[in-house]
Amino acid sequence: MTMSANSHVYLDANATTALDPRVLEAMLPYFTQQFGNPSSKHGGGEAAANAVRRARAQVQKLLGADKPTEIVFNSGGTEGANAAILAALEAAPRRREIIISAVEHPAVLALCAYLEKHKGIRIHVIPVDRHGWLDIDAYRRALSDRVAVVSIMWANNETGVIFPVPELAELAKEVGALFHSDAVQAAGKLPIDLKATEIDMLSLSAHKFHGPKGVGALYVRDSVRFKPQIRGGHQERGRRAGTENVPGIVGLGAAAELAAAHFDDEQTRVRTLRDRLERGILDQVGHAVALGAAAERLPNTSTIAFSFIEAEAAVMLLDRAGIAVSMGSACSAGSFEPSHVLVAMKVPEAALRGAVRFSLSRHNSDADIDRALAAVPGIVAKLRAISPFGAEEGAPVALG
Amino acid sequence: MTMSANSHVYLDANATTALDPRVLEAMLPYFTQQFGNPSSKHGGGEAAANAVRRARAQVQKLLGADKPTEIVFNSGGTEGANAAILAALEAAPRRREIIISAVEHPAVLALCAYLEKHKGIRIHVIPVDRHGWLDIDAYRRALSDRVAVVSIMWANNETGVIFPVPELAELAKEVGALFHSDAVQAAGKLPIDLKATEIDMLSLSAHKFHGPKGVGALYVRDSVRFKPQIRGGHQERGRRAGTENVPGIVGLGAAAELAAAHFDDEQTRVRTLRDRLERGILDQVGHAVALGAAAERLPNTSTIAFSFIEAEAAVMLLDRAGIAVSMGSACSAGSFEPSHVLVAMKVPEAALRGAVRFSLSRHNSDADIDRALAAVPGIVAKLRAISPFGAEEGAPVALG
Repeated sequence: MTMSANSHVYLDANATTALDPRVLEAMLPYFTQQFGNPSSKHGGGEAAANAVRRARAQVQKLLGADKPTEIVFNSGGTEGANAAILAALEAAPRRREIIISAVEHPAVLALCAYLEKHKGIRIHVIPVDRHGWLDIDAYRRALSDRVAVVSIMWANNETGVIFPVPELAELAKEVGALFHSDAVQAAGKLPIDLKATEIDMLSLSAHKFHGPKGVGALYVRDSVRFKPQIRGGHQERGRRAGTENVPGIVGLGAAAELAAAHFDDEQTRVRTLRDRLERGILDQVGHAVALGAAAERLPNTSTIAFSFIEAEAAVMLLDRAGIAVSMGSACSAGSFEPSHVLVAMKVPEAALRGAVRFSLSRHNSDADIDRALAAVPGIVAKLRAISPFGAEEGAPVALG
Repeated sequence: MTMSANSHVYLDANATTALDPRVLEAMLPYFTQQFGNPSSKHGGGEAAANAVRRARAQVQKLLGADKPTEIVFNSGGTEGANAAILAALEAAPRRREIIISAVEHPAVLALCAYLEKHKGIRIHVIPVDRHGWLDIDAYRRALSDRVAVVSIMWANNETGVIFPVPELAELAKEVGALFHSDAVQAAGKLPIDLKATEIDMLSLSAHKFHGPKGVGALYVRDSVRFKPQIRGGHQERGRRAGTENVPGIVGLGAAAELAAAHFDDEQTRVRTLRDRLERGILDQVGHAVALGAAAERLPNTSTIAFSFIEAEAAVMLLDRAGIAVSMGSACSAGSFEPSHVLVAMKVPEAALRGAVRFSLSRHNSDADIDRALAAVPGIVAKLRAISPFGAEEGAPVALG
């Protein structure tokens, strides 16, 4: 799985991952041979329906859901988060408040901004501290019987910081609010056992754990009065209409099974690679800090804020050096505003635009880390040498 | 492309089609090699973004759209139809009426039923006659400045009957209503030149023309004030959030290009196969009628209503004989109600439950038609011999 020396070292797994070749192999028969529509009454339809059934059980197992019918296939995490929040508002029309964290993904933030502006919904935004930890007191204060739904991510896409969502869900239940977690970064990386929690809905996306793009799932606890956001045919028991993406769903199922088999690898080998990368960079580069490192984090993510550089330039120079990384969230890229996550964490001004995210997967090797460690310090030094910020601050940049 | 004698003859193309092997070939590099997220700033992201750009131009060309930016990629036809109608309502909040036809797909019907029941939107349902033709006078009478959007399909999924949507769109424009067409059955089968029409929005699905499942596009004319129904990242210029399904979009683009190259084949060879099948069945089987045959139809579709049989039994027996066909719409299968399309066409009671849809594609051959013609008459006769309806009517079933 290690990439050849000529190809890129890919350290952008939180943006997307390569399909596992075994996942592709599982999908292939459903493109040109078993291509039936699961709703068709002939044998070709039945074969497709069976494949979807198998995948549903695989995702159920990944999440520790009580029943396979609690898994609703859809087109990915953004659709899932939108559907969960809108369905919760519809289920409890008298509850006109939502609680989210300040560091949610744009899938949640943009929808809530819209609901606040156009639908008169009050949005409580719970702050985080400089370690990325959620302000639990503020969360408790925001909870009331006016809250329709809490939507708090399981792990942050930019820093990897993990929120205590099972505990947060228990508190939400006390006031009768539904609880949704955007688990797009957690699912497939961390063991999840939903039946042991009070979480009502959870969204995930296959392409974040070596499954295909364009397919995901929304977990909907059986007790939730769920209203579909895409209406039409009877697919997914009336909870998400549209012809099932059979090859995609099969790929999601296969990726779920493989991810579950690699949880240990993620916690040991991937974590070790990440730690070696992070420590190696911090040892060599001064005026740099690993964000959220004091909190519990995903084992694969390290975001390092380098003072006095622009992350975008670092991403480009690293790309030329054959290393693919990201600045903040890929989903908010395109804007030159500092990341809302880093702003919420009160990252100092000098480092606010200099955060580079290194996100690994089980496809990475020791050699990948060697190459990154050989490239990063020199590129940061180069950028600091030409940086107006560095000059302005008169900062003698410490290099290892 | 002809299936081997051992495999099924697939005559259910309106439910879904096999991926064209050339489409699969185009998609494959984007699963495990060029797997980047188009939003990523490194070379892998750029390669993915370029692939999406190329596909957008291919779909633009298929539809004769004026600009590539008028193509919004999504998860398929149902999402597209839902988004178009909901966006139109949001764009003109004072217009509280919608016009649809009686034979729309459940993607439109179910959404409109919901909007009528829960949002107080008035739905005008325009009837069709027994040939499947729309009642244009009723359509004209329903149009007013209270109508936010007209949603009328380009071609019917059950009968293949084609509606004069360019003309209908011109009439809608006169009252300032937006016009959406569910073109899921027409796109890829018929030449479409949107820039020469007043159609504002149009939805299509790749898997109906040998592209992948789980991906489609919504055409949105540049002048439309479109509101996204899935909010989050900046993808698709803010009109449809969520990481792009790059392999799926590449597949849609490749399928669009291939379909455009096969329009002539569809109108000549596929039409000839369909006509031979239809005439052959009607010549051999009495008390049977091809629905919508007097109207302009898709070249690939023939739905034959056989009196005194249950279509579901015919589908099963044909399946055992190695021929995959469908009863009515696959999307409303699972219910045992007669098809709303056939009810709207006032198909006589004796034939209402006996309609079998044969839908072809460019993958079919003369040998497929031979096999179908050898099987259908015997199966219909067998079912009539045991039919309580047949006995009840005392109908001596005429067989050729």
